[in-house]
Amino acid sequence: MPIRGDRIVADIEAIARFTATPGAGSDRPSFSAAWRQARDHVLAEAERAGCHWRIDAAGNVHIRPRGVSWSRRVWLSGSHLDSVPGGGDFDGVVGVVAAIEVLRAAHEDGRSDVPLEAVVFAEEEGTTFGLGMLGSRGWIGTLDAAALAGVRNRHGKNYWEAGADQGASAERLAADRLRPADYAGLIELHIEQGPAMWKHDHRVALVTAIAGRRQYAVVLRGVANHAGSTGMDDRHDALAGAAEAIAAVECLPDLLGDHAVATVGRIAVEPNAVNVIPSRAEFTVDLRAPDDDSLELGDERLRALVAAAAQRRGLEHEIVRTESLPAVRLDGPLADRVRAAAGGLGLAPLAETVSGALHDAAILAPLVPTVMIFVASRDGISHNPAEFSRIDDIATATRLLAAVVDADPA
Amino acid sequence: MPIRGDRIVADIEAIARFTATPGAGSDRPSFSAAWRQARDHVLAEAERAGCHWRIDAAGNVHIRPRGVSWSRRVWLSGSHLDSVPGGGDFDGVVGVVAAIEVLRAAHEDGRSDVPLEAVVFAEEEGTTFGLGMLGSRGWIGTLDAAALAGVRNRHGKNYWEAGADQGASAERLAADRLRPADYAGLIELHIEQGPAMWKHDHRVALVTAIAGRRQYAVVLRGVANHAGSTGMDDRHDALAGAAEAIAAVECLPDLLGDHAVATVGRIAVEPNAVNVIPSRAEFTVDLRAPDDDSLELGDERLRALVAAAAQRRGLEHEIVRTESLPAVRLDGPLADRVRAAAGGLGLAPLAETVSGALHDAAILAPLVPTVMIFVASRDGISHNPAEFSRIDDIATATRLLAAVVDADPA
Repeated sequence: MPIRGDRIVADIEAIARFTATPGAGSDRPSFSAAWRQARDHVLAEAERAGCHWRIDAAGNVHIRPRGVSWSRRVWLSGSHLDSVPGGGDFDGVVGVVAAIEVLRAAHEDGRSDVPLEAVVFAEEEGTTFGLGMLGSRGWIGTLDAAALAGVRNRHGKNYWEAGADQGASAERLAADRLRPADYAGLIELHIEQGPAMWKHDHRVALVTAIAGRRQYAVVLRGVANHAGSTGMDDRHDALAGAAEAIAAVECLPDLLGDHAVATVGRIAVEPNAVNVIPSRAEFTVDLRAPDDDSLELGDERLRALVAAAAQRRGLEHEIVRTESLPAVRLDGPLADRVRAAAGGLGLAPLAETVSGALHDAAILAPLVPTVMIFVASRDGISHNPAEFSRIDDIATATRLLAAVVDADPA
Repeated sequence: MPIRGDRIVADIEAIARFTATPGAGSDRPSFSAAWRQARDHVLAEAERAGCHWRIDAAGNVHIRPRGVSWSRRVWLSGSHLDSVPGGGDFDGVVGVVAAIEVLRAAHEDGRSDVPLEAVVFAEEEGTTFGLGMLGSRGWIGTLDAAALAGVRNRHGKNYWEAGADQGASAERLAADRLRPADYAGLIELHIEQGPAMWKHDHRVALVTAIAGRRQYAVVLRGVANHAGSTGMDDRHDALAGAAEAIAAVECLPDLLGDHAVATVGRIAVEPNAVNVIPSRAEFTVDLRAPDDDSLELGDERLRALVAAAAQRRGLEHEIVRTESLPAVRLDGPLADRVRAAAGGLGLAPLAETVSGALHDAAILAPLVPTVMIFVASRDGISHNPAEFSRIDDIATATRLLAAVVDADPA
């Protein structure tokens, strides 16, 4: 199957034009007009490549060659088209385009029976509804219809309201779940989004584990008071407490081992006036580590450091864990298949790594044998308009994907 | 002149009802509908007390007994009606109501010639247009028409556009300035807004100095990147830098002596997403000290600590000083008059203090002999709906004001 970089570039550039912020990176929340345009581009390409498609109740798109029925056991490959605000043009898109390119190359070869289903997962990033991987979690059933009715986008619409025009259906969700037996394995191709591969000139790598993630909403409550006439000893300054906690969160990974990271990405204070001591500060914490023991230790330390910063200033505090996803070890036999395919393409020894970022692959891994293939990100820049990966590297990874799926699944 | 607490309460309660947030404290930005209703209440009371009034080009209201012409040299007393968002019902209002109560008491006594002008300064707080004491600074000429055209409220209207319906006029400003010879002195009555007087049970105090204030806008710029796949050593996290700086700002007053305070009241980050390393953090600093040397030292240390936090993380930084008001020593002879009047009322020895908060009095002090009289604030709470001062204490302070102004100015 002749994988062609020029078609891959054309798809990435076409999808990049579907954004709420032309010229300033990708802004493509799930179910938005820009997201739908991107999805429709993919569907049009799939139809031209002789495929049929369906949208499941969670809003994910599934695409197979017309010669492959929906009941046949196949390989699954794909990723997402939604982006963070001010995001890049490669995150997620590369994995969708790679799967489509394999289907396109097979069609060009006159192959209408390649055992591959391409998938576009809805809302991976978590910035549209405040929680990530909603499409894959809805599909496998770890989020039910009520849970998805409880998240809202910035227009105040819940998942079902936002997705109704695009095939999402709360009513059908329970009946339209993933059947693991339908899939021999998931191979998700994605950009690394970190600097390690680029630094070491690893163009393509096999991912053997995905770090677990815990997210938290932290609230500190003090007393609003006049910034001029309240002595430093008489204050209950919620932002000063938050600043101490955020500085401590930055040091937390030192305790948790090599691949742990911790990030405070959002903060808001009230009343947010230049001359008023803040009465309330709310911030998020995103904590990741490659094993669950480290996550558990991080959880304990986080609670202790927030409590200490609050106590020192007479603040009330509250920590809500908004998400907890365990670390995931990917599938050994499928990883061996990828290594063997790499050997066949002259790519051995293939670099191997751990994903610090979460992906839909982590959601499906407990149910379907799963691996990921990473493509190097220039300088590790991601979630940023400057995000970039070499087309040659994406094409190489796509050839590796094609070699894996061009074998009848057992 | 019989000063009556019941009338003072009635005014404070009436004005408190004019707010954009009923039941949640005062929210009365200058020139808003709520502010205008409060001002109209004061004007109606003044007219009932036999007064005439005018609005100067900067939007400040001036009220005199009808028997006192605009050219006569008089005492000046008043404060402001605008509030911070989520503010209290006493800040500013007490000083306006006290001056009105003296005019009302004089009128009741058949005195149409008491040499007192009540004043309502426009926009003292600084939260409406991002800069404080605009009315008094416009009146004395330290802000000209162009400067006031350069500040905008949250509706995007500049000072002149927002104030046009309420008497403000850029065209008249240069000709309608304060003439210092018209005023024998300014006595501004205000709540303390700090805990010191309440702690020591000082009901009323003479203010002999006002701390100077410098305000800053600080911006840190890093790189937006993925919170999961970017190692801690590869980050340029603008919020982590801001947190270190904010924690250091909290410690800054320790270096600057007893009455110094420093506050970070506002913060905003971009892109403000749970799983993206912040690329930009912007926060304000409000620094106050009772003498200019301490302010200068604070300025130096602030710049150094921001630069250090930025450098450690490879961030760009920028510090803009948005306001610089020197510390003000109040008028000695006028303070002696207040002490003498306190003696006559059995209030000697009158407590004396320094104001950590800035006031319109600090703006007029270089041009007109000025003092302030403070009323204790319960637990020092201010800029908060829980703000409270005893009506008895306000009435005592108003009697002191009446005793000072009930003497022909020299």
